[in-house]
Amino acid sequence: MAEHGFQLYDTTLRDGTQQEGMLLTVEDKLAVARRIDALGVGFIEGGWPGAVPRDTEFFRRAATGELDLRHAVLAAFGATRRPGVAAALDPQVRALLEAETPVVTLVAKSHTGHVRHALRTTLAENLAMIDGTVRYLVYAGRRVFVDAEHYFDGYQLNREYALAVVRTAAEAGAETVVLCDTNGGSLPDEVASIVAETRALTGVPLGIHCHDDTGCAVANTMSAIDAGAVHAQGTAHGYGERCGNANLFTVIANLVLKRGREVVPLEKLRDLAPTGRAIAEVTQVPPRAAAPYVGSSAFTHKAGLHASALRVDPNLYQHTDPALVGSAMRTLVSDLGGRSSIELKARELGYEVAAGSDEVARAARRVKQLENDGYSFESADASFELLLREELAGGPPPAPFEVESWSVRVLAPRGAEVRTEATVRLVADGRRLTATGYGNGPVNALDTALHSALDPCFPALARLELTDYRVRVLSGETGSGATARVLTSFRDGERAWRTVGVDGNTVTASWRALLDAVHYVLLDRPTEPAPAPETPAPAAAAVTG
Amino acid sequence: MAEHGFQLYDTTLRDGTQQEGMLLTVEDKLAVARRIDALGVGFIEGGWPGAVPRDTEFFRRAATGELDLRHAVLAAFGATRRPGVAAALDPQVRALLEAETPVVTLVAKSHTGHVRHALRTTLAENLAMIDGTVRYLVYAGRRVFVDAEHYFDGYQLNREYALAVVRTAAEAGAETVVLCDTNGGSLPDEVASIVAETRALTGVPLGIHCHDDTGCAVANTMSAIDAGAVHAQGTAHGYGERCGNANLFTVIANLVLKRGREVVPLEKLRDLAPTGRAIAEVTQVPPRAAAPYVGSSAFTHKAGLHASALRVDPNLYQHTDPALVGSAMRTLVSDLGGRSSIELKARELGYEVAAGSDEVARAARRVKQLENDGYSFESADASFELLLREELAGGPPPAPFEVESWSVRVLAPRGAEVRTEATVRLVADGRRLTATGYGNGPVNALDTALHSALDPCFPALARLELTDYRVRVLSGETGSGATARVLTSFRDGERAWRTVGVDGNTVTASWRALLDAVHYVLLDRPTEPAPAPETPAPAAAAVTG
Repeated sequence: MAEHGFQLYDTTLRDGTQQEGMLLTVEDKLAVARRIDALGVGFIEGGWPGAVPRDTEFFRRAATGELDLRHAVLAAFGATRRPGVAAALDPQVRALLEAETPVVTLVAKSHTGHVRHALRTTLAENLAMIDGTVRYLVYAGRRVFVDAEHYFDGYQLNREYALAVVRTAAEAGAETVVLCDTNGGSLPDEVASIVAETRALTGVPLGIHCHDDTGCAVANTMSAIDAGAVHAQGTAHGYGERCGNANLFTVIANLVLKRGREVVPLEKLRDLAPTGRAIAEVTQVPPRAAAPYVGSSAFTHKAGLHASALRVDPNLYQHTDPALVGSAMRTLVSDLGGRSSIELKARELGYEVAAGSDEVARAARRVKQLENDGYSFESADASFELLLREELAGGPPPAPFEVESWSVRVLAPRGAEVRTEATVRLVADGRRLTATGYGNGPVNALDTALHSALDPCFPALARLELTDYRVRVLSGETGSGATARVLTSFRDGERAWRTVGVDGNTVTASWRALLDAVHYVLLDRPTEPAPAPETPAPAAAAVTG
Repeated sequence: MAEHGFQLYDTTLRDGTQQEGMLLTVEDKLAVARRIDALGVGFIEGGWPGAVPRDTEFFRRAATGELDLRHAVLAAFGATRRPGVAAALDPQVRALLEAETPVVTLVAKSHTGHVRHALRTTLAENLAMIDGTVRYLVYAGRRVFVDAEHYFDGYQLNREYALAVVRTAAEAGAETVVLCDTNGGSLPDEVASIVAETRALTGVPLGIHCHDDTGCAVANTMSAIDAGAVHAQGTAHGYGERCGNANLFTVIANLVLKRGREVVPLEKLRDLAPTGRAIAEVTQVPPRAAAPYVGSSAFTHKAGLHASALRVDPNLYQHTDPALVGSAMRTLVSDLGGRSSIELKARELGYEVAAGSDEVARAARRVKQLENDGYSFESADASFELLLREELAGGPPPAPFEVESWSVRVLAPRGAEVRTEATVRLVADGRRLTATGYGNGPVNALDTALHSALDPCFPALARLELTDYRVRVLSGETGSGATARVLTSFRDGERAWRTVGVDGNTVTASWRALLDAVHYVLLDRPTEPAPAPETPAPAAAAVTG
């Protein structure tokens, strides 16, 4: 049954925004907050009002009711008052109140070195700053959490002072004191012992806040919880500065599935992977494919050895049922997988194939050869399906149209706007179809021209929409001799899928990928398989546009 | 002093190749092996000879002396003999001998479920398979390691059998038995207790092999070592199937810097980050920027709060000295950082700026505004320096040339090869410079045309080389209203740096980035700063070419 006491605390919108490459608008922050709330997380730290103008605006809009949280409680983050200034007179502290949140989280120094050299004040004044600010906010009706910054380093440097910080915060009215491994340099055993000791010596409800600089943020968090922490902080996808914060998604899934602690309800855990994708769409910072539970590769099997065992029982090679976190098993077609992965993939796509059949062997050989040439079918589901259908049918299907020629022009005349124009000449049913399309680049323009030429004859194409495009250069230098592999992503009504094109010329490679998409929509598929989980395209490097 | 007993075992070239997106040639594998060897790792698992043709070839070439390992010992990986077939008659086992490696590592089932349902044999026969194959290889003069597959799950299912597997392998002559968390579902506490118990009950030297499905691979590995494991397996950057293997770089750095165990010599640890980059160049699978120790963001500071503290003492916010792993502190210019990061960055680049000066304030405001429009200076060092110089000088420098117009054409006529042609018209010193360039795409062609037009007048440009190019689409749909941000990477003699261009049209955005690079080379810089560590460009999504 669901745990009510445990405090899951998300800091994606404050610590997570330190992530390199992340620039969130207020609108983005509201969207992310709604997703975290829907997952069942108890606390959302919205930012640092007063210090960051976008955050002041976020809290203002949240206070007008625009955020409509169903479950989570909003927290404003800030610092203890400045040395020598009363809390009530410190504008930074007043800004925290003006955010009108039920919770305020204060970062306080708990490391003597930081008190002296970063804050430049005395150890006693620092305690007074904690005491005064906490009391002021509690008196004003706020629930207060205190983040004890640099706690683990501070504890090892001066244990009594670190403990004094914890006690001072609690005695002033802080509900939870969160022990922060701010520099991220700790390992799980020292986290466990320091949390256990602190708890035993102070009796204060403790939280944990870790960073991944030693690759142990999740383990440190789990370890602290085992040692008695009742509050855990983290960010979506482990976003954060340097190596990031503890990945809250991983912590949640581990607690529920491995420790049997229902910190979010089981039915909400099934939203984990979709929530992860939705948040990444907003932040435009994709999680790595290998991210535990929610990554596009987390339940993806490649090796031939595993593929044959998977045919027997998926649980032989999976540590948990992917459906529990809203994900699904994927098999990769690649030359490493050979016939077994082709069979598995074909069945996944709804085709009946006989084990060990000639068609499967032919398809496996063709995949191997094309991958030697630079193709990669791992992510290009639709291109793979086209290949498979050809092999199963014993030859290519009748082409719905022929390509006669195409061209693209980008003109940047003096003093006038840049124009990109693509012209395609096709022949369908003996009729010539010519169309010119404009766009914000060669691929967009070609895509527009294709639609102009073909949609009237093939109405099904109208719902085909290009959504993403990546170019990767393989082998050789960037000048001559390079091969470009283009992966294009499409939405086709409710479904999302990808095609691949390879050529020495980047625009030609893109053209091939666009054509595959058109052919894919126009072919008649055996079943309407369940929509594939939307997998973010792998990171790619492009040399020329 | 260096530890001789501990066995560091790299499986990048076998388990790591299961990584989605990785396709290594034999040449690639040899290059990676040399790098791992140079780092001081003791064992390199080269692949599965016989099962994977590329791996058979790798071992063949290694045996001819082509690999020239200075420190590491090569291991061939394979499986125990098939049920019911003598080891000497099993071609898969013979292939292991033919690889002519000093070490052979055998994967053996240690989970009763797998023995019965995946291998489809009896528990007794499985033990005989282990015994027979190990003895056969030891008799043939090989050192043998045994990977006990699914050990942690197997131990919890049937402890006695799992222990029997360990004992059987050791009694047959295996030097180390490696306990594998094959499905990656374990947490550190259970790994520690199972390793400790296994060690106590069998007395056999144990190794550890973890996967990151619960986000704890590194912690599990550290935990096993604390519990007595004397051998640790991992891969470069944590490459591997699903969520990847334990990241060997992180394990090494943690052991040396946090546990004081010199598993590689300190001076070789300083090669960690460069080694990581070199390996990623070969595999073309970049590590995430947030990777501990070696990631481009691992020692990168963004927040204004931290930036001001960093000016006092870098160790206030870093858990270790980046130089120890061959990395360096970086500060990011962004609107979050404000004036402090601009000052820090300016000094990093060799400019003397007065704290709190007007120029710095102006530069900070301009960065903020441009970032609102879509620019991102975080990775674009050269574009940032151009901006900074303008603000410090109080205005833009005299332009070495003016752009009159430019255009690009891509022609794909029927039956003929695709041609990409770019024409640029510039004016320098009153003279018109017109040039046409060809390339494998619009950006390559524009780059060629620019060089044709400008190199004769500006010889310094001859060494400017475009090396990488990424497009990212910001805000709005992919059709109208989207903005493209292009990040271009260049090499300029020994130095590597990047520029950024933003526009609604992808080709125009690329053009702006190319122009910034030209202007950057042509300006006269104050000092020749130390070459910036080569940071891989962040992952990007492009919609149109």
